[in-house]
Amino acid sequence: MIDYYSVKWMDDYLSLLDQTLLPSEEKYLKITDYRDVIEAIKSLRVRGAPAIGVAAAYATVLAARNESDPAKLALMFEEIRAARPTAVNLMWAVDRQSETLSSTCVEKSSEVVQMLLQGANQIYDNDLRMCEAIGDHGNDLIQDGFSILTHCNAGALATAGMGTALAPIFVAHGSGKKVTVYADETRPLLQGARLTIWELMRHGIDATLLCDSAAAYLMSQGRIDMVIVGADRIAKNGDVANKIGTLSVAIAASKYGIPFYVAAPSSTFDAGTPDGSGIIIEERDSAEITHIGSYVTSPRGIRVYAPAFDITPAELITGIISEKGVFSPGEHLT
Amino acid sequence: MIDYYSVKWMDDYLSLLDQTLLPSEEKYLKITDYRDVIEAIKSLRVRGAPAIGVAAAYATVLAARNESDPAKLALMFEEIRAARPTAVNLMWAVDRQSETLSSTCVEKSSEVVQMLLQGANQIYDNDLRMCEAIGDHGNDLIQDGFSILTHCNAGALATAGMGTALAPIFVAHGSGKKVTVYADETRPLLQGARLTIWELMRHGIDATLLCDSAAAYLMSQGRIDMVIVGADRIAKNGDVANKIGTLSVAIAASKYGIPFYVAAPSSTFDAGTPDGSGIIIEERDSAEITHIGSYVTSPRGIRVYAPAFDITPAELITGIISEKGVFSPGEHLT
Repeated sequence: MIDYYSVKWMDDYLSLLDQTLLPSEEKYLKITDYRDVIEAIKSLRVRGAPAIGVAAAYATVLAARNESDPAKLALMFEEIRAARPTAVNLMWAVDRQSETLSSTCVEKSSEVVQMLLQGANQIYDNDLRMCEAIGDHGNDLIQDGFSILTHCNAGALATAGMGTALAPIFVAHGSGKKVTVYADETRPLLQGARLTIWELMRHGIDATLLCDSAAAYLMSQGRIDMVIVGADRIAKNGDVANKIGTLSVAIAASKYGIPFYVAAPSSTFDAGTPDGSGIIIEERDSAEITHIGSYVTSPRGIRVYAPAFDITPAELITGIISEKGVFSPGEHLT
Repeated sequence: MIDYYSVKWMDDYLSLLDQTLLPSEEKYLKITDYRDVIEAIKSLRVRGAPAIGVAAAYATVLAARNESDPAKLALMFEEIRAARPTAVNLMWAVDRQSETLSSTCVEKSSEVVQMLLQGANQIYDNDLRMCEAIGDHGNDLIQDGFSILTHCNAGALATAGMGTALAPIFVAHGSGKKVTVYADETRPLLQGARLTIWELMRHGIDATLLCDSAAAYLMSQGRIDMVIVGADRIAKNGDVANKIGTLSVAIAASKYGIPFYVAAPSSTFDAGTPDGSGIIIEERDSAEITHIGSYVTSPRGIRVYAPAFDITPAELITGIISEKGVFSPGEHLT
């Protein structure tokens, strides 16, 4: 059904779809150096918490292939781990690979690489299964004829598998239910317009694009049955860090009594963070807002407020769809 | 203090600042044909409900200058009146000029033109005074050190005078109060980024640009003391039609207990429309969302939801700042 992917290991290199070029161009990068994975994560060629986790896991393999000194390798792992501060899957994946590395007693460098590759492949496989399970659990919540709003991109492009927030929609559509999807364009980087719309059209799903600011008005007219978004990190109490604008959608959904679901794998849960106030919010470069392609949106020198994420409090979330089922926010999920 | 203007009569032509070129270029158009005013209104070279009203009033003068047949002139007035469907000031201004025309018994075409010019000048002068009064009334609500959020552009560029939503800010700043302004960029046409930021910088006011979707998060952090926006039409019960995204801001402001004010002249009140459901919401061309300059945001052929305005219900509005004072929404203002 899905004939594209965000991240895939190809025997001796990592293949990444350069998402900054979508929807104009579908170009896969052939990556052999772990630093190019870091660059791809930082510049959002690969994005979406689960996909970043998978890419980071393979980055550790690429690092180990060229470096056998454990101390130097540990520094490289730290570098990978720091590529983006909010996505907990990134740290989770690198930490898992570090454990694999430290628990092994093999000495030969090629065997270390092999073990890390096995670990990365396992993270990849888990991601595929996780997406399918989220798709199935989420599909149970979707009725025939539903009109669903989503924000940013939490589709196949954001994971190694079929996605998180879009997975229930793909499964529902595949099972013959009629679903209509409204996708917020998601400023500043337009992941909704560029990526979610691209994925929905590719699947032949009825899709409509709107500006982020129009979502509340659409909801006020009774035209949305449910909201599904992804998550970059979920605190212990159920507060969710996700793409900037998610909070705005959640507040409006709450006002109009529309169920608001977050779809995310359990690797997104961060039991070590009691609530959203403990989540570091990455600030992005102001040029992402003041420039769109060659178009300059505002006078030179203006100060810009550019948080990449916001925190949606647990109270606004109807349920969290994980691979283990649908939970109330704050329920112990891991 | 203000060394720019949106619309001004220059003895024998109408001078309009082409706002589609801002902030890159400050170019004034010399208009002598009423059809060019209609084009300028439709393509948003001149925008903002009060400025549109003033421009339309002068368009009737330009029309009458070349057409003395009352029946034909009435048709031209109708054309002007239909340039944009939501702004009630447009209809109000044209209707006022029609009355001037029908109440006169002069026959000479040059005298008709003169009477219409007097009428238009009066609408222009009223607009200047209206802006000043709104500025004064609104200034009373602003405390020293306030941080104010605004959406779209309701500044000097949206009126013939110093603006509606920005007027209180200009007056407060001029009186020595420290004010910080956060301006939503206002997709799709970025009036906040292009115009409001330009005006604030021009006045030397502390300004920060943000994406529309970040406003709720900013408010959730306690960083905003009040919201002031403009209005394109206010129904009898106090429901307000304003730029798409206003509703979203109002819902978030309400959630976080932040006062939400609408600044608008009494010509924006439409006592003939009982509530917001009776206001026609203009749908804009989808290309305004799918294209930003030469940048294409989404796959070709996608369906787009592109309302130009939304309706903020009276219950979410703290007060309406008009030239006559500050009213509760729904109070009889005209």
